[in-house]
Amino acid sequence: MATVQLLEYDDMSPEARSVIDDIKSTRQVDDVNNFWKALANDPTTLGRIWEGLKTVMGPGHLDPVVKEMIYIAVSAANSCDYCIHSHTASARAKGMTTEQLGELLAVVGMAHQTNALATSMAVPVDRQFDAHPDAD
Amino acid sequence: MATVQLLEYDDMSPEARSVIDDIKSTRQVDDVNNFWKALANDPTTLGRIWEGLKTVMGPGHLDPVVKEMIYIAVSAANSCDYCIHSHTASARAKGMTTEQLGELLAVVGMAHQTNALATSMAVPVDRQFDAHPDAD
Amino acid sequence: MATVQLLEYDDMSPEARSVIDDIKSTRQVDDVNNFWKALANDPTTLGRIWEGLKTVMGPGHLDPVVKEMIYIAVSAANSCDYCIHSHTASARAKGMTTEQLGELLAVVGMAHQTNALATSMAVPVDRQFDAHPDAD
Amino acid sequence: MATVQLLEYDDMSPEARSVIDDIKSTRQVDDVNNFWKALANDPTTLGRIWEGLKTVMGPGHLDPVVKEMIYIAVSAANSCDYCIHSHTASARAKGMTTEQLGELLAVVGMAHQTNALATSMAVPVDRQFDAHPDAD
Amino acid sequence: MATVQLLEYDDMSPEARSVIDDIKSTRQVDDVNNFWKALANDPTTLGRIWEGLKTVMGPGHLDPVVKEMIYIAVSAANSCDYCIHSHTASARAKGMTTEQLGELLAVVGMAHQTNALATSMAVPVDRQFDAHPDAD
Amino acid sequence: MATVQLLEYDDMSPEARSVIDDIKSTRQVDDVNNFWKALANDPTTLGRIWEGLKTVMGPGHLDPVVKEMIYIAVSAANSCDYCIHSHTASARAKGMTTEQLGELLAVVGMAHQTNALATSMAVPVDRQFDAHPDAD
Repeated sequence: MATVQLLEYDDMSPEARSVIDDIKSTRQVDDVNNFWKALANDPTTLGRIWEGLKTVMGPGHLDPVVKEMIYIAVSAANSCDYCIHSHTASARAKGMTTEQLGELLAVVGMAHQTNALATSMAVPVDRQFDAHPDAD
Repeated sequence: MATVQLLEYDDMSPEARSVIDDIKSTRQVDDVNNFWKALANDPTTLGRIWEGLKTVMGPGHLDPVVKEMIYIAVSAANSCDYCIHSHTASARAKGMTTEQLGELLAVVGMAHQTNALATSMAVPVDRQFDAHPDAD
Repeated sequence: MATVQLLEYDDMSPEARSVIDDIKSTRQVDDVNNFWKALANDPTTLGRIWEGLKTVMGPGHLDPVVKEMIYIAVSAANSCDYCIHSHTASARAKGMTTEQLGELLAVVGMAHQTNALATSMAVPVDRQFDAHPDAD
Repeated sequence: MATVQLLEYDDMSPEARSVIDDIKSTRQVDDVNNFWKALANDPTTLGRIWEGLKTVMGPGHLDPVVKEMIYIAVSAANSCDYCIHSHTASARAKGMTTEQLGELLAVVGMAHQTNALATSMAVPVDRQFDAHPDAD
Repeated sequence: MATVQLLEYDDMSPEARSVIDDIKSTRQVDDVNNFWKALANDPTTLGRIWEGLKTVMGPGHLDPVVKEMIYIAVSAANSCDYCIHSHTASARAKGMTTEQLGELLAVVGMAHQTNALATSMAVPVDRQFDAHPDAD
Repeated sequence: MATVQLLEYDDMSPEARSVIDDIKSTRQVDDVNNFWKALANDPTTLGRIWEGLKTVMGPGHLDPVVKEMIYIAVSAANSCDYCIHSHTASARAKGMTTEQLGELLAVVGMAHQTNALATSMAVPVDRQFDAHPDAD
């Protein structure tokens, strides 16, 4: 099931193909995964998302594996089945071990538990946690 | 505002005080933050959550700062204002730099964006992302 | 803060006042809480929501306190601070004890934890849980 | 998979059949989609939801296509796969173009991104955004 | 699909088998459901979650069926398809009737609706709902 | 409260100031709202988000007021209090009437209700809603 067509390369607009070409060469893959084939229906968004992802997931102040683990955590919180699968695969490809995945999921599970407890009790934020005391 | 009383040490049950004592000595602090004062209304849950947190956030296969950053990512996804504040403070106390926080938030924001796109297009999961091909 | 005016009785339309009158007499209160004063900006929705609530929260197959506890669980999952406060107050008014609230929150917290684990591992549903085997 | 039986017309109660008859004649269709067959297990809720939907999605101050697009946006945020599919189909049937769907999804994705950023930084609401300055 | 292997008993570590043995004997079943086979990849988390579940879902101040219904409500809010199926099956096994399930879902649906309304209007919490007036 | 400093213009980096200058001139305002002052801690993300917003919210295939209403719907689903306030103010500034806001909220509320019902019953998607029949 899907709510849009998954476009194959030959069915894409020239603008979309150009983005797909860059994804293939950057990732050194022969074909792109379904997310990009779906996004190719809107070449402008396809290009903007790919450029954003390259910037955000590229070299910076955090380890690439850590970024993928953060991505898994967010995707699980959003129940995005597609994203959970694709980013778990990416994290493994970048070196995440089974033990690290286990620990990641333990943290994710615990965070959801304490989030629910703090929210359901409506615990007021301690003043010492405020990074901008004059803000309100 | 809160939906339960925030209990001070003198108003807690002996069972709750014992947990609070362990939190104080483990974290080497004089007082605990509001989350624990709220949870002290239910000493059994207080003890279970604290033991779980010690296990999950303790030494393992992931860097302690990374665990706090994962916690921030989940807390933001759940709109848990209390948890966002407390774990951002914890991450900073454990060494997270402003640049790392910026990059964490950039990944978190991007993940929410692509999660929403993949979900709203109902993109089918590529077979190569399946870690258990016989599962269904 | 609010994104709409909180209307006092004198500022409401006759259609809205009629609904508010019914809320007051049904609940035997002198004034309604802020949710209704906000909703009074749209008398049609005000009436539809009030009628729906009377039906759903009225006598049926579940204990009124249980219904309020379910409402708290959903409100916490949605991070609806207003609803968490109002339904915790309602549940207490209908007899929920501190011990029951503690147990409710423990279940809510645990459910969020195992939800996150099942979702992040993308566990396939066991066939025996299917109530409509021919559905797909 | 499903957690309730999907009832066919012959297996429904008279009360449920009456609602289904109204759905069929209002929408001028020969059969209803699965959502209604599942909801038919509870005729009271079936009737209340159908009446509510007719009111809310009927003629008013917003274009019918716009209402369906808002429905898609909410359904994606809730990861409701069923609703994403059914309301994307409804929006297309009411005239939504591929370009409009692309733009809708771009807005939805961007909103999730900036929502996550504002929430994770806990940005205090600017006073000029308050529609009811005396409210708190 | 799944992002981890579903381990069968013979492929589990001794530590994991010991937990699985306890689940089987406690629940008096011949095999465990997929959630546990997935969690068995991380024996420490497997043990912690099982112990937590036994405590939280065991005898206490709420009816076991009520606890399962709360679990269904949270799982639906989190769009956890696996959990919705497994806990609906558990609730039925513990005596939940079709009428009770219908009423549960009606409350869950209504709660989501009023949550969304209260949140989108940003209704300020009434002072009388505050259980800890000095908290902030 | 906030988890980052809200930077005033004089405290921003030259790269951040350049983005803020563009926001001010594009929107023809004397000062920017808090979201941008918070985001200014990370000039790269500040620039990327602003460029993305200009593209997505700029002229296209949907009415600017409709885009703001979609933004409100998503922000409410994510419980982003800041975003609910800022985009409700934007929508009003662009011409959204009180009647349209009321109808928007009615649709948002109803969508959350039927989303929760469809998800909790795990209704299988009807085949006719599939836009890509060969996708899976």
